[in-house]
Amino acid sequence: MYAINHRVGIQAPSEQVYEALTTNDGLMKWWTNDVSGAGDVGAVIKFRFNGSGPDFKVAKLVANNTVVWQHSGNVPEAWKGTEISFQLSSDGQQTFVNFSHSNWQQATDFMAHCNTKWTVFMLSLKEALESGQGKPFPNDISIDHS
Amino acid sequence: MYAINHRVGIQAPSEQVYEALTTNDGLMKWWTNDVSGAGDVGAVIKFRFNGSGPDFKVAKLVANNTVVWQHSGNVPEAWKGTEISFQLSSDGQQTFVNFSHSNWQQATDFMAHCNTKWTVFMLSLKEALESGQGKPFPNDISIDHS
Repeated sequence: MYAINHRVGIQAPSEQVYEALTTNDGLMKWWTNDVSGAGDVGAVIKFRFNGSGPDFKVAKLVANNTVVWQHSGNVPEAWKGTEISFQLSSDGQQTFVNFSHSNWQQATDFMAHCNTKWTVFMLSLKEALESGQGKPFPNDISIDHS
Repeated sequence: MYAINHRVGIQAPSEQVYEALTTNDGLMKWWTNDVSGAGDVGAVIKFRFNGSGPDFKVAKLVANNTVVWQHSGNVPEAWKGTEISFQLSSDGQQTFVNFSHSNWQQATDFMAHCNTKWTVFMLSLKEALESGQGKPFPNDISIDHS
């Protein structure tokens, strides 16, 4: 099994970061502009990019601290069985987000692509909270020409 | 052992990408503005960030295709024994760079930080080659507040 791990420090209270990870409006500010279904544990969040995209089931929530999603359907095939988690912590001046996308079966070019792209969205989350303006799809930074 | 893998697609000929990875001038356009020692296999490249930073020994070069460096001294401690490689390929419209920083002993917060930060520099490499203006240190994008 392989995992993608990122870490960013955001100058915003953990409550605001948590909201950006657990509500449709919050998620639409940094990952994609088409999100529905966010809610409590058991909810299935639908992330869409020009109409298609992954579903994730909310597996664990600890207020202002932990968010865990399990991939529960749709594309991409390589994400089947994977899990995404966000762990929040603070050093007094910033909220650190430890992001993990784990349980990958293979370390492929596609996984490397996703690893690079997750940084783009973690920086979008940071910008959304610090400046009020993130770069969710379709305004995300391109990492290649496809 | 753990590895960081990224993949970006750059609209520039592989010759230009290779030059940006193998010459002092090229490296200074995307990683840090203070680089010396770049050269053939066996050369030790000194990357400096406000005076300190890692040395890497050039371990393998295949023109316009492969660059491998072995960490050979200085900071950071966690990079001891690690290796960095760049593999170039083309799909006709872009040069793909498969970046790998491998042989990490532990998957720590610091490794997650470096993973996120390597994206920043891969995007800087992409910008440097596509627009003529990268974001090498000290103009690199901040991923936290330290």
